[in-house]
Amino acid sequence: MPSAKGRRAGGLTPKGEQTRQRIVAAAAQLMFDGGVSGTTIEDVRVAAGVSSSQVYHYFKDKKALVEAVIEYQTETIVGGQEPMLAALDSLEGLRAWRDFLVKHQEELECRGGCPIGSLGSELAETDNQARAKVAAGLARWEQGIRSGLRAMHARGQLGTVDPDELALATLAALQGGLLLTQIQRSTKPLQTALDAMLALIAYEAAA
Amino acid sequence: MPSAKGRRAGGLTPKGEQTRQRIVAAAAQLMFDGGVSGTTIEDVRVAAGVSSSQVYHYFKDKKALVEAVIEYQTETIVGGQEPMLAALDSLEGLRAWRDFLVKHQEELECRGGCPIGSLGSELAETDNQARAKVAAGLARWEQGIRSGLRAMHARGQLGTVDPDELALATLAALQGGLLLTQIQRSTKPLQTALDAMLALIAYEAAA
Repeated sequence: MPSAKGRRAGGLTPKGEQTRQRIVAAAAQLMFDGGVSGTTIEDVRVAAGVSSSQVYHYFKDKKALVEAVIEYQTETIVGGQEPMLAALDSLEGLRAWRDFLVKHQEELECRGGCPIGSLGSELAETDNQARAKVAAGLARWEQGIRSGLRAMHARGQLGTVDPDELALATLAALQGGLLLTQIQRSTKPLQTALDAMLALIAYEAAA
Repeated sequence: MPSAKGRRAGGLTPKGEQTRQRIVAAAAQLMFDGGVSGTTIEDVRVAAGVSSSQVYHYFKDKKALVEAVIEYQTETIVGGQEPMLAALDSLEGLRAWRDFLVKHQEELECRGGCPIGSLGSELAETDNQARAKVAAGLARWEQGIRSGLRAMHARGQLGTVDPDELALATLAALQGGLLLTQIQRSTKPLQTALDAMLALIAYEAAA
């Protein structure tokens, strides 16, 4: 849902929306590569191929741009995974998701970590609004995982365990696995973290 | 082990070592609160109560100071936990460690995340030496967890599971739990992530 804040409200022309999207996508890539603090409005302007007044037309300051980047990454990553998340109601679906996540890190050569989690780590202590927006993005991810595990639970396939806690623990394993994968430049931590959760879910399923 | 690089080699006087430590501790606190990019050498100088020439006497640039901060945080956190890590060879020891970690986050009001992991997230894509140093610090933490789990395994208390993989997954759960705890300002993610690993270890122990 577009926020009511900023100049997005009131509706942009299709061309305006396109320009805005180009700016946000350029900013997201730069911040993924070099962090928020390593990215200036001028860098974004050059990468998006727009004028300075265009950037400031859509975003009153860097803080507003950062918020748009958090929304964009949430939509790209969590929104993009939603069809896969909808299949997390079986061990097969969970394994396919795990394989997809590991393969994606291989393609990225283990660079960048989680685009949402990294923004959270960088901004949590200095920008409380950004922290809350990252929390909302991660909550959406957690919700996707949860609905699959709740379905398994409802079918009696998860024993007595709380599927909501399992979903939160899975998101934590994913985030920690992505961070260690980034730091070690190896997909092993992500694989191992997710496999541990799969092993736990398999035990619960058999309990 | 002090690194041979920089001006530390060749030995500092006790007073020199004390001044150096004061600078590193001040930098570590500032970087924990506001990130590396949010911390200038001038901020560190003021917080440590030293002159600019003193800072540059010990650290040729900010990069050298950041490396010293990574070593300092590794020593403080992992070194400080080593007596507790030595007891991770039983479910009771693992539970006591989990309780300690959660209580520590309560005391910090869930601020800051993992001081080592946060540095890794911020620096991994822009400073490869810092990334490698963070990886080494986290490897030391993993090793502490691993030795307890290996002891359990050697006593036949972990079934057929690989204790090294369990240790890596536990470190990932810890890192992801700390990150989500920071972003959500709640200890629940950390608790839930560690409890999931404890549940898995308990299943393996009973298998």
